[in-house]
Amino acid sequence: RALTIGLIPGDGIGKEVIPAGRRVLEALPASLGLKFDFVDLNAGWETFEKTGVALPEETVQTLQSCNGGLFGAVSSPTTAVKGYSSPIVALRKRLALYANVRPVKTVATAKKPIDMVIVRENTEDLYVKEEKTYDTPEGKVAEAIKRISEKASTNIAAMAGEIALRRQKIRASGAPSIHQGPLVTVTHKSNVLSQTDGLFRTASKAALADPRFSSVKVEEQIVDSMVYKLFRQPEAYDVIVAPNLYGDILSDGAAALVGSLGLVPSANVGKTFALGEPCHGSAPDIQGQGISNPIATIRSAALMLEFLDEEEAAAKIYAAVDANLEEGKFVSPDLGGTAKTEEVLQDILRRL
Amino acid sequence: RALTIGLIPGDGIGKEVIPAGRRVLEALPASLGLKFDFVDLNAGWETFEKTGVALPEETVQTLQSCNGGLFGAVSSPTTAVKGYSSPIVALRKRLALYANVRPVKTVATAKKPIDMVIVRENTEDLYVKEEKTYDTPEGKVAEAIKRISEKASTNIAAMAGEIALRRQKIRASGAPSIHQGPLVTVTHKSNVLSQTDGLFRTASKAALADPRFSSVKVEEQIVDSMVYKLFRQPEAYDVIVAPNLYGDILSDGAAALVGSLGLVPSANVGKTFALGEPCHGSAPDIQGQGISNPIATIRSAALMLEFLDEEEAAAKIYAAVDANLEEGKFVSPDLGGTAKTEEVLQDILRRL
Ligand SMILES: CC(C)[C@H](C(=O)O)[C@@H](O)C(=O)O
Ligand SMILES: CC(C)[C@H](C(=O)O)[C@@H](O)C(=O)O
Repeated sequence: RALTIGLIPGDGIGKEVIPAGRRVLEALPASLGLKFDFVDLNAGWETFEKTGVALPEETVQTLQSCNGGLFGAVSSPTTAVKGYSSPIVALRKRLALYANVRPVKTVATAKKPIDMVIVRENTEDLYVKEEKTYDTPEGKVAEAIKRISEKASTNIAAMAGEIALRRQKIRASGAPSIHQGPLVTVTHKSNVLSQTDGLFRTASKAALADPRFSSVKVEEQIVDSMVYKLFRQPEAYDVIVAPNLYGDILSDGAAALVGSLGLVPSANVGKTFALGEPCHGSAPDIQGQGISNPIATIRSAALMLEFLDEEEAAAKIYAAVDANLEEGKFVSPDLGGTAKTEEVLQDILRRL
Repeated sequence: RALTIGLIPGDGIGKEVIPAGRRVLEALPASLGLKFDFVDLNAGWETFEKTGVALPEETVQTLQSCNGGLFGAVSSPTTAVKGYSSPIVALRKRLALYANVRPVKTVATAKKPIDMVIVRENTEDLYVKEEKTYDTPEGKVAEAIKRISEKASTNIAAMAGEIALRRQKIRASGAPSIHQGPLVTVTHKSNVLSQTDGLFRTASKAALADPRFSSVKVEEQIVDSMVYKLFRQPEAYDVIVAPNLYGDILSDGAAALVGSLGLVPSANVGKTFALGEPCHGSAPDIQGQGISNPIATIRSAALMLEFLDEEEAAAKIYAAVDANLEEGKFVSPDLGGTAKTEEVLQDILRRL
């Protein structure tokens, strides 16, 4: 099978980790029958500075004819800059990548094993970015719309249910696991936002009440309490489904549990396309030193393959990464080691 | 000085912890010259079931003539119930309690000392609860308004600055501390919400640029990264200021760091009134067993006194609680002990 993969390194360490992801894909055993074509694409702050556009139309259109992609990271200004808007947020919408899937997992040998997936709605909530500002006698006031639809909530909950079932299937095949059965935890703040988060809650629960999810246990947690529980008993969670912004916050929180954002992958998933994206940012502080951790990107490449139905190839990559981490010999500075990006990559490549 | 204090136990364990808070206030040494009058007031789910109103007008009006109050916890339904609306959210608005102050601190003997205060804006953001729902061909859609004003952002940041200075003054008086100097971290998501969170950011930074805060270091963190850092290096944070919803989430997250929500107090603060409120909920699962931890409420009573300018009385209560925790003999089940509410209370009372 031939797969065309768009590569968008973006800014900062994005340029160091995306090439590592590419080399892992290229190094997959020929027996898997996969052939990759890579297309280099631009987006981000540097692109904006050069061209005045953060997400060139060409990047969007080329991706539309790709099977998948890898997105590095972009540096966003914290103040509003005229004409600049986050390219990853825009891409998620333009390509209808309705789910953001973020597995957070320790290696099997960890003292406190954690194995969860955060399934984040990826197109709406406050990310619709409909804002306005007006003047009042007491100063400026700004408003943003938080939009939650029954449709998107239903779709994301169904995705969470599917992922819970898929994880259960892998467990049933004998893989060691800390979980007994499939569990989906619906996260919201419907005690305050009874209509918006209330809709997320009822639509999610309705979707998960479908007979195909009859083996999946469904629970719910108010988002503040979810963050509390995430830190008190992370081992209890299997699949967590959340609206966009809570999902953003929860996945960074979960990443803290496994030691470094440099380990945590994500995939932005649409009906027929998946975009792998490390959860870390462009990290300008360590850029250019060759010490960024390539694992989040390498795992994101595997996650992308999973959603392109190449589970065998994905499993090979995960196993190579886990072996690297379990041995603990080539470990990058974010995890307390001294290995360079290239050394971590070489160690993973030789295990493929 | 005579202080009139309104007591609103609410539901569940609220009814067990508020009396404990009252008894601590009553037991303060006469030398402090404080005389308390207590007024019992109703609010919450039980009140709603009996009367059809969750926050009786009488409660609001009586509080308006009190100096301070203690609010326990209320049980909210997670589904919208016609006519029901969270009484604490309403109270914060009705009494213009613009700041929610949540100190999170380990005892001096803790292995990993943490000593931070989360200063949460308490009246706006998504808590304006302006929501609507409409039908579309693809199903229901709901929208909520997130409103951020320059005025509220300025006020809350100034409060954060004042608190940072006050903490520094206590340190300068020789109290042991993990912090070098006063630091305020402004939390927002202005990389996505450039107008609303952008306004929070610029107004906060402008307020903290006032010469009276010249000794205060000001930093900023995007909210997702703030949650990550909160768990990776909590000792680094002194005062964190945030819009309402992020503050809600961050304070529960911070509470997880100190072992139990049962330890974490808060105060809802207005210009001339302070309402102490434990951060925990009504905990129906342990209600009636006499095992709830009264410390969050006792500390909330002290925090209320601080904002009523009775710092000496507050310090007495804090010291008694710290001594109880440091000895670790009368410890409630949420902290791994077996002591009853009454035993923890007695131990604290005898140390006053
Ligand atoms: C960079 C930012 C716009 C983005 C988001 O908020 O989605 C990031 O935090 C992420 O999680 O991918
Ligand atoms: C009960 C709920 C409405 C409340 C809030 O969201 O403010 C609670 O979580 C809190 O933190 O006081």
